[in-house]
Amino acid sequence: MDFRSDNVWGASPEILDALAAANSGSAGAYGDDDWTTALEARFAEVFEREVGVFVVGTGSAANGLALSVMAPPWGVVYCHKDAHVEVDECGGPEFFTGGAKLATQDGKDGKLQADALAPAIVGKGFVHAPQPAGISITQASEAGTVYRPAEVRALSELARANGLKLHMDGARFANALVSLETSPAEITWKAGVDLLSFGGTKNGCMAGEALLVFDPDLAETLGFRRKRVGHLFSKMRFFSVQLLAYLEGDLWLKNARRANAAAMALAGELEALGATLAHPTEANEVFAQLPDDLVKRLEAAGFLFYPWPAAGAGGHRFVASFLSDAEAVRAAFRRL
Amino acid sequence: MDFRSDNVWGASPEILDALAAANSGSAGAYGDDDWTTALEARFAEVFEREVGVFVVGTGSAANGLALSVMAPPWGVVYCHKDAHVEVDECGGPEFFTGGAKLATQDGKDGKLQADALAPAIVGKGFVHAPQPAGISITQASEAGTVYRPAEVRALSELARANGLKLHMDGARFANALVSLETSPAEITWKAGVDLLSFGGTKNGCMAGEALLVFDPDLAETLGFRRKRVGHLFSKMRFFSVQLLAYLEGDLWLKNARRANAAAMALAGELEALGATLAHPTEANEVFAQLPDDLVKRLEAAGFLFYPWPAAGAGGHRFVASFLSDAEAVRAAFRRL
Amino acid sequence: MDFRSDNVWGASPEILDALAAANSGSAGAYGDDDWTTALEARFAEVFEREVGVFVVGTGSAANGLALSVMAPPWGVVYCHKDAHVEVDECGGPEFFTGGAKLATQDGKDGKLQADALAPAIVGKGFVHAPQPAGISITQASEAGTVYRPAEVRALSELARANGLKLHMDGARFANALVSLETSPAEITWKAGVDLLSFGGTKNGCMAGEALLVFDPDLAETLGFRRKRVGHLFSKMRFFSVQLLAYLEGDLWLKNARRANAAAMALAGELEALGATLAHPTEANEVFAQLPDDLVKRLEAAGFLFYPWPAAGAGGHRFVASFLSDAEAVRAAFRRL
Amino acid sequence: MDFRSDNVWGASPEILDALAAANSGSAGAYGDDDWTTALEARFAEVFEREVGVFVVGTGSAANGLALSVMAPPWGVVYCHKDAHVEVDECGGPEFFTGGAKLATQDGKDGKLQADALAPAIVGKGFVHAPQPAGISITQASEAGTVYRPAEVRALSELARANGLKLHMDGARFANALVSLETSPAEITWKAGVDLLSFGGTKNGCMAGEALLVFDPDLAETLGFRRKRVGHLFSKMRFFSVQLLAYLEGDLWLKNARRANAAAMALAGELEALGATLAHPTEANEVFAQLPDDLVKRLEAAGFLFYPWPAAGAGGHRFVASFLSDAEAVRAAFRRL
Repeated sequence: MDFRSDNVWGASPEILDALAAANSGSAGAYGDDDWTTALEARFAEVFEREVGVFVVGTGSAANGLALSVMAPPWGVVYCHKDAHVEVDECGGPEFFTGGAKLATQDGKDGKLQADALAPAIVGKGFVHAPQPAGISITQASEAGTVYRPAEVRALSELARANGLKLHMDGARFANALVSLETSPAEITWKAGVDLLSFGGTKNGCMAGEALLVFDPDLAETLGFRRKRVGHLFSKMRFFSVQLLAYLEGDLWLKNARRANAAAMALAGELEALGATLAHPTEANEVFAQLPDDLVKRLEAAGFLFYPWPAAGAGGHRFVASFLSDAEAVRAAFRRL
Repeated sequence: MDFRSDNVWGASPEILDALAAANSGSAGAYGDDDWTTALEARFAEVFEREVGVFVVGTGSAANGLALSVMAPPWGVVYCHKDAHVEVDECGGPEFFTGGAKLATQDGKDGKLQADALAPAIVGKGFVHAPQPAGISITQASEAGTVYRPAEVRALSELARANGLKLHMDGARFANALVSLETSPAEITWKAGVDLLSFGGTKNGCMAGEALLVFDPDLAETLGFRRKRVGHLFSKMRFFSVQLLAYLEGDLWLKNARRANAAAMALAGELEALGATLAHPTEANEVFAQLPDDLVKRLEAAGFLFYPWPAAGAGGHRFVASFLSDAEAVRAAFRRL
Repeated sequence: MDFRSDNVWGASPEILDALAAANSGSAGAYGDDDWTTALEARFAEVFEREVGVFVVGTGSAANGLALSVMAPPWGVVYCHKDAHVEVDECGGPEFFTGGAKLATQDGKDGKLQADALAPAIVGKGFVHAPQPAGISITQASEAGTVYRPAEVRALSELARANGLKLHMDGARFANALVSLETSPAEITWKAGVDLLSFGGTKNGCMAGEALLVFDPDLAETLGFRRKRVGHLFSKMRFFSVQLLAYLEGDLWLKNARRANAAAMALAGELEALGATLAHPTEANEVFAQLPDDLVKRLEAAGFLFYPWPAAGAGGHRFVASFLSDAEAVRAAFRRL
Repeated sequence: MDFRSDNVWGASPEILDALAAANSGSAGAYGDDDWTTALEARFAEVFEREVGVFVVGTGSAANGLALSVMAPPWGVVYCHKDAHVEVDECGGPEFFTGGAKLATQDGKDGKLQADALAPAIVGKGFVHAPQPAGISITQASEAGTVYRPAEVRALSELARANGLKLHMDGARFANALVSLETSPAEITWKAGVDLLSFGGTKNGCMAGEALLVFDPDLAETLGFRRKRVGHLFSKMRFFSVQLLAYLEGDLWLKNARRANAAAMALAGELEALGATLAHPTEANEVFAQLPDDLVKRLEAAGFLFYPWPAAGAGGHRFVASFLSDAEAVRAAFRRL
């Protein structure tokens, strides 16, 4: 019952098996290997089109690289005030971009809304003003909610109308996808997303992350940029093969469904015991305001979870993972 | 007989076993785990003193971080003209440091020499001049040679006399160590090294790299810097455990000895067939000028290796790895 | 009646005379001249203590340099949402700092308030969070108001309590000073200000700007930083002498009093004709909501001024300068 | 007889007169003024074509901006080992470019030579290598020599062949121009120069510098870049008018001829007294090896000049200025 983060758990056995299988013979370094080639083809299938694939080591690296091709050093990227790029990367986006500015917006349930954002996009072409350059959204959001295709489309239309690019931070992309019951294509490039940080680590990889690029112009400099930040792994096969195994046989979707179901169970059980959800539970995270005694009972029963002031008075966060189990959650609550 | 690079081979079985063993239960993310704690203790033993340990994903990241705490954005780091930081990181050091300058020096057999370097260190305190800040050397060097403790000491004394810090890029540190038959402490901090990029990837890890810091003042900002460049891995246990296994039972030294022995065998066989060594073979790399017909015979026999113009007319590079075998090399030459 | 900006007017005759007087004989370049030495002494008198003086060409350069020594590249500087550093420098602060983040706060009448700011200062020492590093305020503010000494002190106490530095952007410092009827010392270092961008350009110089540093530790790297951004002028005497003449015989205070008086007259006349002030007029800028017909009458009479949406419906800005004249303003309104 | 630098002297009276004349009435700020518009037209005449004009405060700023549009942060700019951008700007180019690398070459008499440079341009498209991006030359050079049109053309052809841009640092452009007896067009864009740092400060302005852009594509982002580094002056008229006056009536050429003639006289007199020129005297700088007793005699006679180790044993530098006078130089030597 460790719900501190989906990062506290290890990797799916399939990922380990794939690593072992890839550990044979010599292969070209730095991505010149069969696994990386196969991964590129696999992503093209999954997303139903050609896509630029840049395997990196962390989601922060994928995000930073994405923003660095969206925004010049004097550019502005609009994001939610709780966005990972804003609050959890120690200034990484500013570093990768050479100084671009993140302009934050509030937004219900962790989501940017196109109509609320529109008036904030100012100064284009005015030499004194930082220049509007991009929008970055997180799917699933930092509040455990998911953007509907129509919401993404509204943002991409706003972006297009202002000459901006749209980035999706998909650290929990699989969780959002199974929640929406839509296709990878529908919720990304068909809705106007230009760049996707495709995250596998939280959902069962050891370190499986890639920046996917749907706008070929944006891919031009990414090879150099990735190298320069130290994310071009010499034995890249061991990173590519994780993502291959992650996509193989829909492991990613199975893992995500399991995590989401456990989160849903958690949410239901917490509400039944007097907790109030701060946001709808739409992926694998639960944000809830808990009575003090409930916190104590859960802690006494060995539950691990973090206080979360942003979720309001008594706010706490629970993150279910690919190893969580809805039935086990319910059983644990029965034993409280 | 693939001698293109030590990066073309996979990982030691011990590394894979360690990954599998570490894949159990939950653990704190971002380095707050038992494996990372154990690794810090292990490095302290190996180096016979307290040492700051910053696990990262690539040697380029370790190098970039090292330089970023040695040199301000207007600083100068002196290095050999063939140094990896200069020619093989796509401007990474300039990125990590925010614009510091690499001032290159030539030097016999890939090594900087203190007396030749001394006159180049100019401009300290002069507001117009980029400011001397550090020296970076590669051990084993890019020419396959190794710095003796006295050579390192001469450079560190030059550094101290000028208020500079000394960094060692140890992408092939193990190969140098077994070649020198000295201790990790003797060839690093006891000889005046302030920062060591400790590389395990080329010598048997999947991605096992750490920046080791012997001068505690230099470690102060590294936590933030590592996070900002996207090298603070959420499931860090899987990186730390690789280095633990690498050090365990002297796997690192065994692997390096094997690679070095194979390189030595290669060098001998090549010379016997008319090749001229461009540099002494002191670690796991052989740089040699080959007659055309020898190149053809080797290629016909399935040898893989790269032309290396820097090694002179007919120059080629052969890199032996932890999977190479001196006896097999000799046998392959007998079959030529 | 050109109230578009205090930048649209030229320079005080005293400034031109001083330039001519300084144009004789040879003098050390890059600040090694008598005028610069005299300026340093003069600033020490004016501020009643030793002060580091870094002459630069623009206020943006002074601000950028100030922030660059307050905040590391992963630092956060708190400022008002309308601050010049945030909205009017095309990302300069991010560039000078190597990527620090400006975290904006709203605040009545263009001013940050300590108690409202306090809860926003979070994440100190937490490796994932951009690191709180400084506070920047503008005196007079972008809303034409001035910070009282007690308000500055409250902010500096908040800064100290959190290990932050306090910067004052004094592009209109003289206007604030004469408005407050206090001393330069009282409103800066005695109230806890660490760095002051001392602006002379808007108030009668051609290009007279200096970064003044009250915390000697912050001055250490500024010589190198100024050079690196191209603001170490070779013929610095021509910049230093402008500030000398500006301070001589209290020219700066006279100019500022004249501008403020004209602004006060403007505010009164506008209100008398039905305008509503968006903020109190405390320095040389008037922000007011004007009925449409008043706008037309003023334009027809040759008044120049900018619409200013941030000042609300019908919002406009009028900036009086050192060449404005309160009586002439009143006369112009009588002629409307 | 102050020959320390051309920076130690003030400004031509014409420049001061022009400043005074421009100090009347109101004018748009930030370059939206008649003087700046006139300057753009004037530069178009002088260079016989449309040219992008970016007025800045220092030559370092012009150089930094030029390099920032030639080279990406992972780019390489080739320059002479003694180039101002390499040794005298405290890392400014690295700052303005976000980390580009200056790769230095030696070259006789301070000049890059196309055939010697060619083999150094390596790694284009190779993801590990910093990317060749530009060439920067100084006209007149740091050795007091000048590039002939054919020499510039050879370098621009090399640049074109490798997809690089060519920048000319013209801090002493006028001195080179009158030395060559050619036209501004012939020695710049007609010879393949893409960007010119046009310097007026050393030759009679107070602070008169502009970046001229012959390749319109390179101008696109320069407005933002200039603003971001704090070089968009609010009262730009006072900078533009200096350059207008500098070009008016060929003041710039007259000043340069005077300086060059004085340098020629200096060189002749020094040689006559046993000095050896380190480089041909082709503009306004003399580099010579002086016998010790000649140094003493000159110092005793009140000559000011700097020792210059790079000019060899007994090396010294003398810089003549727009206020120097060849006849007065000869007279001073007669009085020795």
